[in-house]
Amino acid sequence: MVIQSEQRVAGSKQFASADQLFTYTFDSLPLERGGQLAPVTLAFETWGTLNAEGNNAILITHALTGNSHAHDVQHPDDPKRAWWNPLIGPGRPFDTTHYFVICSNVIGSCYGSTGPSSLDPLTGEPYGMRFPLVTIRDMVRAQRVLIEHLGVRQLAMVAGGSIGGQQALEWGVAYPELVQKVIVVAATAALTAQAIAFSEVERQAIMVDPLWQRGNYDPGHGPEAGLSVARMLAMITYQSEEGMEMRFARRHASNRAVPAPSRAADLGGRFDVEDYLYYQGESLVKRFDANSYLYISRAMDLYDVSEGYPSLEAALRRLRSKALFIGIRSDFLFPPAHVRWLADQVRLVGGDSTYVELDSPHGHDAFLKEWGQMTNALTI
Amino acid sequence: MVIQSEQRVAGSKQFASADQLFTYTFDSLPLERGGQLAPVTLAFETWGTLNAEGNNAILITHALTGNSHAHDVQHPDDPKRAWWNPLIGPGRPFDTTHYFVICSNVIGSCYGSTGPSSLDPLTGEPYGMRFPLVTIRDMVRAQRVLIEHLGVRQLAMVAGGSIGGQQALEWGVAYPELVQKVIVVAATAALTAQAIAFSEVERQAIMVDPLWQRGNYDPGHGPEAGLSVARMLAMITYQSEEGMEMRFARRHASNRAVPAPSRAADLGGRFDVEDYLYYQGESLVKRFDANSYLYISRAMDLYDVSEGYPSLEAALRRLRSKALFIGIRSDFLFPPAHVRWLADQVRLVGGDSTYVELDSPHGHDAFLKEWGQMTNALTI
Repeated sequence: MVIQSEQRVAGSKQFASADQLFTYTFDSLPLERGGQLAPVTLAFETWGTLNAEGNNAILITHALTGNSHAHDVQHPDDPKRAWWNPLIGPGRPFDTTHYFVICSNVIGSCYGSTGPSSLDPLTGEPYGMRFPLVTIRDMVRAQRVLIEHLGVRQLAMVAGGSIGGQQALEWGVAYPELVQKVIVVAATAALTAQAIAFSEVERQAIMVDPLWQRGNYDPGHGPEAGLSVARMLAMITYQSEEGMEMRFARRHASNRAVPAPSRAADLGGRFDVEDYLYYQGESLVKRFDANSYLYISRAMDLYDVSEGYPSLEAALRRLRSKALFIGIRSDFLFPPAHVRWLADQVRLVGGDSTYVELDSPHGHDAFLKEWGQMTNALTI
Repeated sequence: MVIQSEQRVAGSKQFASADQLFTYTFDSLPLERGGQLAPVTLAFETWGTLNAEGNNAILITHALTGNSHAHDVQHPDDPKRAWWNPLIGPGRPFDTTHYFVICSNVIGSCYGSTGPSSLDPLTGEPYGMRFPLVTIRDMVRAQRVLIEHLGVRQLAMVAGGSIGGQQALEWGVAYPELVQKVIVVAATAALTAQAIAFSEVERQAIMVDPLWQRGNYDPGHGPEAGLSVARMLAMITYQSEEGMEMRFARRHASNRAVPAPSRAADLGGRFDVEDYLYYQGESLVKRFDANSYLYISRAMDLYDVSEGYPSLEAALRRLRSKALFIGIRSDFLFPPAHVRWLADQVRLVGGDSTYVELDSPHGHDAFLKEWGQMTNALTI
């Protein structure tokens, strides 16, 4: 195992368990839209053991505000401790007794990998908005450097949801010879206009906050109100009308312990759904960097699997791996009809493609909640 | 005609036509949630002539950022000149040769009726957030004072969409003896949790803008960036995934003439849908008051036709008028299933209820776009 020699990142408070967060730093990464990132650090965690052939590795790819902590060895049964916790471990779909499971924080993020809050070696200051534009392809290219460094020769699977699903798809198209199976959850060939529109409202909410200061805020003094409003909106798009009606309906908030981003007084009471959104906004502000939000959400918008190929068909024809597509009935950010359509396109160009739909009212977030259905889908 | 004696409001720049904007001021209005508004001014326009019996009047009720200019006599064929222009006039569903059509600006708004930007007589300053909470019922009560002042004894119809639809419904329930027909377009018995959530994100976007200053901004120096972000989001909720895909898809913006609310540089180009939303945000800022946005959107959230009655059935049983409900296939703010359900409930308690659905991809806004289908629906 190469990774024992890696430097450990100290004091990442978001990781409550004893799982080790490793980092790997390499010299530079040329970027799809121009320029390069140099040096590049990737934070990652692993579970299980790589075999001698180097072909039992699974790469797990995370969503917008996620991180490498997909599994928590100390608390393997608590979904709140790690974002895909119930799917990883002995006897689970990503079985750590047979597989070497890797999850790395994407470039552009703020959980140990190089992102806008990292120090720019040219200035000694955080990059801020001088951070170069990074794409889903760049994230995947960086992951490729990492897995090769770890001694992986072929990935048994790449699996992720949302932006993580875009990465899984891109892995299969960009490096068909390196992947045996891609699992694309709640992701499509490219975002809809509506999804781009929601994304942009979120980014504008951050950037109109005067504390954003064109990205040059001091750590701990960023655009908290703006980021909180952005998160409130995002949380609506991760759920569904049906799910929110089941959970909140028109109930009034009982305790009102959470301040609104504006700190303004409630106007005619507070609905439970409002209190919930304030809480979600406040929670994200404590754990996520506003500039990272801008960059990663933009990578999501810009992703189009067909870009640079003569056609979508030409891009999808590159896939040699099995492809499992999982849509969610009530997802309106990545509508299931679009996920199914993509699965059909792969089949139409001769690919080995399967589509499964989660029958869930929980919207886009169902891939982080419906453990039974997810387990079934992953083990068909 | 009483209205010839009313004072004319000067210089309302939004009215490009020669239509006259009248105002009527009365002493006070007790408010549903406590307190009163005193004095109360309503700005209104009328078309056609009231008959001697006072029973040929139609009240048209407007949506969130709308105003009394539902029809433009000088440009009756231009939908951009007035919001329900093609539906009002000789030979149209709201036929001004037979009916006396009235449209008044709601209390809480900023188009001549008393709202947060009006001067508080107690202080001589704009009300700002000292403006009392007003509800859909309060808006309707104020309209009742107006129509009685105008000599109307019975309304042949009350018709409106969105918040205007809530008002039409409330008219039928609150004053069953005064209304012969209610036409409720793209409105329901009460908002969903998801719709309240979108509303609240919009309000927080306004209130986190430091220029909001807890509502005490000077005219012309309000929270323009925040209001613009709020409008961007609202415009998404007024459309649909399907409609936005037809109109924008992933096309890139060709000219980029409109600055983003944040004035920040584009990150990796600009999609056409983003440019469109910037334009919509900027347009609203020029014509609407941020505090009015807070109050009227909150009235929309708080509205529940059953409030104060033993049950929804008890409320709906009060209706004596015909009731026409118009839903829109692709509306996700006021989902058609909810509009249809309300129409069914009215029928179940013995009411004369009809449901028509507009087959439109344009989402909630279809009631301001689908002139052919709207005309058909209104004349069945």
